Amino acid sequence: MATGHEHTVKAFDQDISQLRALISQMGGLAEQAIHDAMKALSRGDTALAKEVRKKDKQIDAIEAELEKLIVRVIALRAPMADDLREVIAALKIAAVIERIGDYAKNIAKRVPMIHTEGEDRIEAISILPAMAQLASDMVHDVLDAFSARDAEAAARICERDNALDDFYDSIFRTLVTFMVENPRTVSQVAHLLFVAKNLERIGDHATNVAEMVYFAATGRYLADETATG
Amino acid sequence: MATGHEHTVKAFDQDISQLRALISQMGGLAEQAIHDAMKALSRGDTALAKEVRKKDKQIDAIEAELEKLIVRVIALRAPMADDLREVIAALKIAAVIERIGDYAKNIAKRVPMIHTEGEDRIEAISILPAMAQLASDMVHDVLDAFSARDAEAAARICERDNALDDFYDSIFRTLVTFMVENPRTVSQVAHLLFVAKNLERIGDHATNVAEMVYFAATGRYLADETATG
Repeated sequence: MATGHEHTVKAFDQDISQLRALISQMGGLAEQAIHDAMKALSRGDTALAKEVRKKDKQIDAIEAELEKLIVRVIALRAPMADDLREVIAALKIAAVIERIGDYAKNIAKRVPMIHTEGEDRIEAISILPAMAQLASDMVHDVLDAFSARDAEAAARICERDNALDDFYDSIFRTLVTFMVENPRTVSQVAHLLFVAKNLERIGDHATNVAEMVYFAATGRYLADETATG
Repeated sequence: MATGHEHTVKAFDQDISQLRALISQMGGLAEQAIHDAMKALSRGDTALAKEVRKKDKQIDAIEAELEKLIVRVIALRAPMADDLREVIAALKIAAVIERIGDYAKNIAKRVPMIHTEGEDRIEAISILPAMAQLASDMVHDVLDAFSARDAEAAARICERDNALDDFYDSIFRTLVTFMVENPRTVSQVAHLLFVAKNLERIGDHATNVAEMVYFAATGRYLADETATG
C-alpha cells in the first residue's frame, strides 16, 4: 500500500515538474519575443518582425500541450486540494504568458506600419526601448521567482509595476506632443502609442503572475498584505 | 450501485448547470458594462463611467466563485474525459468574459480624459457607437449560442469578426485624420483610438468564446473547418 501511494506521489511530482518546465519554456520564448520585437522596431527590421509573429505559434503550441497534460494529470491522479490548486495555477499562469507573447507579436505586427516606405525615421521611437527593458525585466524576474517559488521576489516585482505605469504616462504625453508638432507622422506615432500600451500591459501581466506565485508560496493574497501593511 | 451512479451523474449535471448559470450571469454583466461605458462616453457622463468601473468587481467576484466551484467539482466528482473538458472549457470561457468586462472598464476609465473640462465636444466620438453595437451584439449572440450549445450560431459569430476588424481599420484612419486636422484635441482623440481598439478586442474575445462553444458542441476546431471549406 505504502509503495503504491509513494508511486502515485512520485508520478504527480513528475507531472508538476513537467508542467513547471513547460511554463519556463513558454516564459523564455515570450521574453525573447519582446526583445526581438523591440529590436525589429528600433531597426525597422521587418524580416525579424515577421519571425516574431511566426514564432508566437510555438508559445501557443506549448500552451496547448500544457492544457492536455493538465487534463491528463487531473484525470489520472485526481489531485486533492493544494495539489489541484497548483495544477489550476499552472493553467492560469500559462494563459497569462501566452498573452504576454501576444503583446510582443502585436508590437512586431506594427513594425511595417511604423516604418513606412519613404518616411523619415520617427524620432519618437527612441524613447520606447528603455520602457521595453523595464517590462521585459519584470517578465524575466517573475519567471525566476516562479522557478524558485520565491514569494519575496514576487512581491518586489509587483512594486515595480507602478514605475512602469508612470513611464507609460510620460511616454503617452511625449508621443501626443510629438503628434501635435509633426502632423505628417500622426499615423505612425499612433501605432507607437499602441506599442507603449502593449509594454504597459506586459508589465500588468507579469504582475498578475507575480501575485499568483506569491499566493501559491504563502497562501495569502498579496493585495491584502500591501493594503494593510 | 446503479442508484449511486445515477446520484453522482445528477450531482455533476447540477454542478455543470450552476457553472453555466454563473457564466451567463457574467456575460450579462459584461454586455451591460459595454453598453453603459459607451453611453457614458457619448454623453460625457463621468458618474456612469465610475459606476461601470465599480461594477466590474462583480464580474471578478463571479469568476472567483466559479473557480472555487470548479476546484470543488473536480475534487468531489473526479470527472472523466468529456466532462472534465467541459469543466476546463467553463474555466476558460469565464476568463475570457472577465477580460471583456475589463475592456468595458477601460473604456469607462477614459471618459474623464476624453471629456476634459473647457474642451469642445470631440466630434470624432460619434463614429464609435455603431462599432460598439457590433461588438456588443457579438457578445450577446455568443452567450446565446453558449446557452443553446448551438455550433452553427457560434460559427456565424466568427464570420462577423472580419466586419468588426474592417470597421476598426476605418475608424483608425478617421481618427488619425481628425488628429491631423485638429491638433488641439490630439490627446483626447488618442484615448478614442484606444476605445476603438478595446471594442475590436471585445470582438476578438467573443470570437474566442464562439470557437470554444463550437469545439464543445462538435469536437472539431472551427479554424480547421473554415480553412478547408
